Amino acid sequence: MTASGFGDWSRRRLAEVEAALDEWVPADAPAGLGLAMRYGVLDGGKRLRPLLVLAACEAVDGRAGAALRAAVAVELIHAYSLVHDDMPCMDNDVLRRGKPTVHVEFGQAQAMLAGDAMQALAFEVLTPADGVEPALQARLCGLLARAAGHAGMAGGQAIDLASIGRPLSEDALRDMHRRKTGALLQASVLMGAACGRTTTASWQALSDYGAAVGLAFQVVDDILDVTQPSETLGKTAGKDVQGNKPTYVSVLGLERARDYALTLRDEARQALRRGGLDGAVRLEVLADKVVERES
Amino acid sequence: MTASGFGDWSRRRLAEVEAALDEWVPADAPAGLGLAMRYGVLDGGKRLRPLLVLAACEAVDGRAGAALRAAVAVELIHAYSLVHDDMPCMDNDVLRRGKPTVHVEFGQAQAMLAGDAMQALAFEVLTPADGVEPALQARLCGLLARAAGHAGMAGGQAIDLASIGRPLSEDALRDMHRRKTGALLQASVLMGAACGRTTTASWQALSDYGAAVGLAFQVVDDILDVTQPSETLGKTAGKDVQGNKPTYVSVLGLERARDYALTLRDEARQALRRGGLDGAVRLEVLADKVVERES
Repeated sequence: MTASGFGDWSRRRLAEVEAALDEWVPADAPAGLGLAMRYGVLDGGKRLRPLLVLAACEAVDGRAGAALRAAVAVELIHAYSLVHDDMPCMDNDVLRRGKPTVHVEFGQAQAMLAGDAMQALAFEVLTPADGVEPALQARLCGLLARAAGHAGMAGGQAIDLASIGRPLSEDALRDMHRRKTGALLQASVLMGAACGRTTTASWQALSDYGAAVGLAFQVVDDILDVTQPSETLGKTAGKDVQGNKPTYVSVLGLERARDYALTLRDEARQALRRGGLDGAVRLEVLADKVVERES
Repeated sequence: MTASGFGDWSRRRLAEVEAALDEWVPADAPAGLGLAMRYGVLDGGKRLRPLLVLAACEAVDGRAGAALRAAVAVELIHAYSLVHDDMPCMDNDVLRRGKPTVHVEFGQAQAMLAGDAMQALAFEVLTPADGVEPALQARLCGLLARAAGHAGMAGGQAIDLASIGRPLSEDALRDMHRRKTGALLQASVLMGAACGRTTTASWQALSDYGAAVGLAFQVVDDILDVTQPSETLGKTAGKDVQGNKPTYVSVLGLERARDYALTLRDEARQALRRGGLDGAVRLEVLADKVVERES
């Protein structure tokens, strides 16, 4: 696939995701809640998770309508986690996606409620009255809930909080990142895959691909935090060092962290081949983008 | 049904709910997160919502296993909302169910994460690998998500926040309470009903019953806030007046608020009769308990 071929595909898919978010995140929720929700999720972000959902769905000839709902649901969970994570009692950040964070703009109480409502909305989006068969709705809800909850994202955040100022072994760091960031990225791939037909082998391959890409994403995040300025990142740079948080850069050093990201990219590619998914070029390009990104 | 007949039934059902919560809310979630979650949901609360789920399920001869999952899921949503609601940026309360609130005990960041993880866990509990047919799983997820989200509980909380110090009309107050407390209580009844077979008429009747009981609950809550001491409530009394919040007592006065609670109880009973659910004695007793409770 040429770079422009991927670019055209991703632009079309992203336009669909933006339109769906715009339609499904309500402006008219009471007392400004909808405005805070929309502020937290519209017009920003790389939308990597939705693209992983849609590319995985296409790799297994899945149902596009269900995958679009899954893509929006995953992005809602990701966006809510950022809204809560930025709050003063957590990372206390004032800049996100190049804008003031939700609590800066709407106040802490509204930010907490907006995040809570975004999580609920993710499961609303996955359970429409028609258009997606109920068994698939249930499967998507289950995959998303497990990735978002105590064993996944929320659990990873708890480890993150408890690790401030404490050295972590490489294994413990990997465990934290697999949960905190990796679980939802892996779930994105699996939710896309659930929209189509998979064999045990191709499901496992997509699971391995998702795990490798998920971890690579966080390794690169750790690298960008020390190598890029805030303007490029759209969020405050240098937060990890400032917050005294263990990262792949603090544990491995910058060069070994870079090498590790490339190794994970290769693992992701190999997983696709193992699963007979050599034709899943968009997933391959997405793995490249995760490692090569500069913001 | 005799009072002791209901008492025996509710004790048995509550024991099942407590055992299920104890089993499904993990102690071993990372970095103390599981302990905060368990602290927030175990050993406390009246468990009115689970009882409504289970009584509604029995009224329509529904599947007990699915209803138990629904009961636990609804209680997890309720408990997470209390954890977040008690935080300093919201109601800033230090006492709940007779104990220090979760953020007092575990810190604000862990309290926020525990609430987030409890919401996700509710949807995990509704989507087991087996034991509940997938179409019912999807239906339960959809009912719960809509009741918890922007159009329901979270939306009601946003109105609540925006109403501090402002007079509300009776209609606006009713709208706020229907969302903030009523939506989840009504969903409890409907999730129980979804576990069995209903006609259009009996579904509508249970929906009306749930709406009336849900609103009655909040009217009584407003009354108890001014008539009972903190020790009886297990939470700080007088918070509404202190927080300058519109309530049924401030809008209607104490006597008319009491009358309104009784009117809603009668509406709930009539709804059951309209739906041909005269035999649903446990639902009838639960409506009585909601109005007669003293804490």
